[in-house]
Amino acid sequence: MQPYEMTLTAAADAIRARRLSPVELADSVLERVEEVEPRLGAYVTVTAEHTRRTAREAEKDIAAGRHRGPLHGIPMGLKDLIDVAGVPTSASSRVRSDHRAQADSTVAARMSAAGAVLVGKTHTHEFAYGLTTPQTSNAWDRDRVAGGSSGGSAVAVAAGAATFALGTDTGGSIRVPAALNGVVGLKPTYGLVPRHGVTSLSWSLDHVGPVTRTVEDAGLVLDALAGHDPRDPASLTMPPADYRPTEGTDLTGLRIGVPRTWYFDHVDAEVEAAVRSAIDRLRSLGARLVDVEIPMTRYIQATQWGLMVPEATAYHESTLRTVPELYQADVRILLEAGELMPAGDYLRAQRSRTLMRQEWASMLREVDVIAAPTLPATAVQAGQETITWADGTVEGVSDAYVRLSAPANITGVPSLSVPVGHDTEGLPIGMQLLGRPLGERLLLRIGHAYEQTRPARELAPAV
Amino acid sequence: MQPYEMTLTAAADAIRARRLSPVELADSVLERVEEVEPRLGAYVTVTAEHTRRTAREAEKDIAAGRHRGPLHGIPMGLKDLIDVAGVPTSASSRVRSDHRAQADSTVAARMSAAGAVLVGKTHTHEFAYGLTTPQTSNAWDRDRVAGGSSGGSAVAVAAGAATFALGTDTGGSIRVPAALNGVVGLKPTYGLVPRHGVTSLSWSLDHVGPVTRTVEDAGLVLDALAGHDPRDPASLTMPPADYRPTEGTDLTGLRIGVPRTWYFDHVDAEVEAAVRSAIDRLRSLGARLVDVEIPMTRYIQATQWGLMVPEATAYHESTLRTVPELYQADVRILLEAGELMPAGDYLRAQRSRTLMRQEWASMLREVDVIAAPTLPATAVQAGQETITWADGTVEGVSDAYVRLSAPANITGVPSLSVPVGHDTEGLPIGMQLLGRPLGERLLLRIGHAYEQTRPARELAPAV
Repeated sequence: MQPYEMTLTAAADAIRARRLSPVELADSVLERVEEVEPRLGAYVTVTAEHTRRTAREAEKDIAAGRHRGPLHGIPMGLKDLIDVAGVPTSASSRVRSDHRAQADSTVAARMSAAGAVLVGKTHTHEFAYGLTTPQTSNAWDRDRVAGGSSGGSAVAVAAGAATFALGTDTGGSIRVPAALNGVVGLKPTYGLVPRHGVTSLSWSLDHVGPVTRTVEDAGLVLDALAGHDPRDPASLTMPPADYRPTEGTDLTGLRIGVPRTWYFDHVDAEVEAAVRSAIDRLRSLGARLVDVEIPMTRYIQATQWGLMVPEATAYHESTLRTVPELYQADVRILLEAGELMPAGDYLRAQRSRTLMRQEWASMLREVDVIAAPTLPATAVQAGQETITWADGTVEGVSDAYVRLSAPANITGVPSLSVPVGHDTEGLPIGMQLLGRPLGERLLLRIGHAYEQTRPARELAPAV
Repeated sequence: MQPYEMTLTAAADAIRARRLSPVELADSVLERVEEVEPRLGAYVTVTAEHTRRTAREAEKDIAAGRHRGPLHGIPMGLKDLIDVAGVPTSASSRVRSDHRAQADSTVAARMSAAGAVLVGKTHTHEFAYGLTTPQTSNAWDRDRVAGGSSGGSAVAVAAGAATFALGTDTGGSIRVPAALNGVVGLKPTYGLVPRHGVTSLSWSLDHVGPVTRTVEDAGLVLDALAGHDPRDPASLTMPPADYRPTEGTDLTGLRIGVPRTWYFDHVDAEVEAAVRSAIDRLRSLGARLVDVEIPMTRYIQATQWGLMVPEATAYHESTLRTVPELYQADVRILLEAGELMPAGDYLRAQRSRTLMRQEWASMLREVDVIAAPTLPATAVQAGQETITWADGTVEGVSDAYVRLSAPANITGVPSLSVPVGHDTEGLPIGMQLLGRPLGERLLLRIGHAYEQTRPARELAPAV
């Protein structure tokens, strides 16, 4: 096994035990980047020189007994909305062609303090406003979408071009590409991870979180990400928690809600079968399955779009006037549409969110977590605009990809997407576990229990 | 002195000492209502029969030793947005012509529990959406506006047609008519007084509060009004406080902020002179005057209207479609305008409010309270649409009347308007004291200190 193939947990163990040097690991990942990038296009910027220098420093520090913890010396990708001092934050947009970040974002600073080694900035759907990331290819099939908006992060992690990565999630943008590329994605509780220095799409729905190869890896990254920062007005104050999941697989006593509504409507049969089989696995580990009815489902789409569209437009207000031609057409149209949205729609979306939060809190008193498909379908062909369901209904790809992710953004509850197999075309399928606000530890425990029952996973072919 | 002329405090003392019976007081007020109503039009509904019955019950209870406190047996008016079970809540609108409240609002229930005696429901500018209350005349000059939207409440209290009243305040609607009619009006801290059962104008700016003849009276009413109610989502939880101001007039050690900006711009010379003289009185009581600069003044108007207009329209959405012809033209036009407001304007108003709250909090760390005119002008002629300032600037009457009140609605800080004299035409002038959130006790203490240094006040002529 090459170092680039190792999980974060395995690499961290090897580094701590001095069986692996951060320089070896960085070199292995950088070689892999060179190998797969022509086909994947996961990165906007690869900071190879900086990567090697940081890896050497890590090696030296660790050799001198200054080991900072599990992220020390681990190569990572950062979605190119996340500021790193001195590096451009392109947001994968021509609008940002001469941008250079002045200071580290909170999460970049925390990663750096934990000793992680930046490999580069990964592609996002332009300004995170889309679900495909057209610059990047799916790690499993070059002709299929990477998913978005954190497409570059998920593809890099799936292909061994980063040991882990950070993404952002406004309507599913961490979980969608994670599911489509067979990796783990965690959208934490709203406010758990500070967003200072991260380009905003919609501040009341935006989250930052990890993309990793295993659930255990996600816990290690979250340990270093979580915690209050007053510069993000939504940042929560809470006591530090240990997110690394424990080893056991016994789920006795846990109530897992299985949605009767919404999450299994218009879902591909192979996706449904894989997710139901994974849920069955959780039952065999001791969990009790409980039918739940998802509340207010007919408001989900209007609420998500009613919040996101005007907030996104407000963020882009001035550049939309001065340099509209620099945006891609799909994003510009969405931004311009936001200028036409009436105040009443935004206000009703805010009220509906308040009610939806209350209803979800009440549902989540009856069960400990909810298990559901992350997405209704696997990766579509690049350029494909619609999905036709078994009953003849035609749905836009973006609508389909947002549909099952949006409730966690609207309500702010945490959601963890874990790979649960592949369809007959070999494309990955994801299951999401949704929990109570600040219930990350339980999600990670269940996800980790599940992944321990599966055969060891391989990297995506990516070539 | 007739009983209807007594302040709440004096009447409460007389009732407790059994020098005055609630029945005598109610009869005196009802006679006064009959005398002045043809000229004032302060009431939508006078509940004379109910008033006499409640007064008799109060008399009996008190005689039997069950005295409930200072409001027991005191005649009050309730603005006709405040639900009282079994009585119509007309909102002074034809839209509500067949309305009847099913249950008491929280504040009506609290008043009733405290033993207050309802005289009737007072006129509001239709649905509180205006600053004149055209059905009602100013208590000091029949040809001048009552002010609004709690015009009926202020005029009734000023004329002796109620011993006290409740109003609501979204952009100045308690303080504006209080100042124009020479009585005291308190807009409490946002969330201190629950609004359950009170017709909404703009839920993020609406407040309920007392209109009284003295500051001391306002404290007594607030004692019975304040306190948490979960049915108002904005209701605050806080320990009970005693709002009745203490007797002393020594203000040594207090820092009173005197605005260098905004509050004295485009203010009538007589109003400014009266307010500055009142501020000087506070200084002579020991307070230190400190110049302050009001932050973000150029955002005040846009923020107030940007929040109020879409929220008001949302409340009226269905009736605006089904019975638009039942609204008065001025209100209908404002409501219809709300349908055209873009989401971006509402969203920017919300963001600007957040910033304005922070800036005000920081200003209010430097001083204990701020003293300023309540209004830039005294009562205008009924039907007058604009005010022309000394420099030739022409301003709409509504804009002028909202201008100095709105900051307290946007920021949620408490504001107390106290009478500080009359102009050469005999029209009342008000000064407002603005404090920190939940700083009502200090406002009441300062206002009460001020009123103790003034000659005893007379009721408005009102005939």
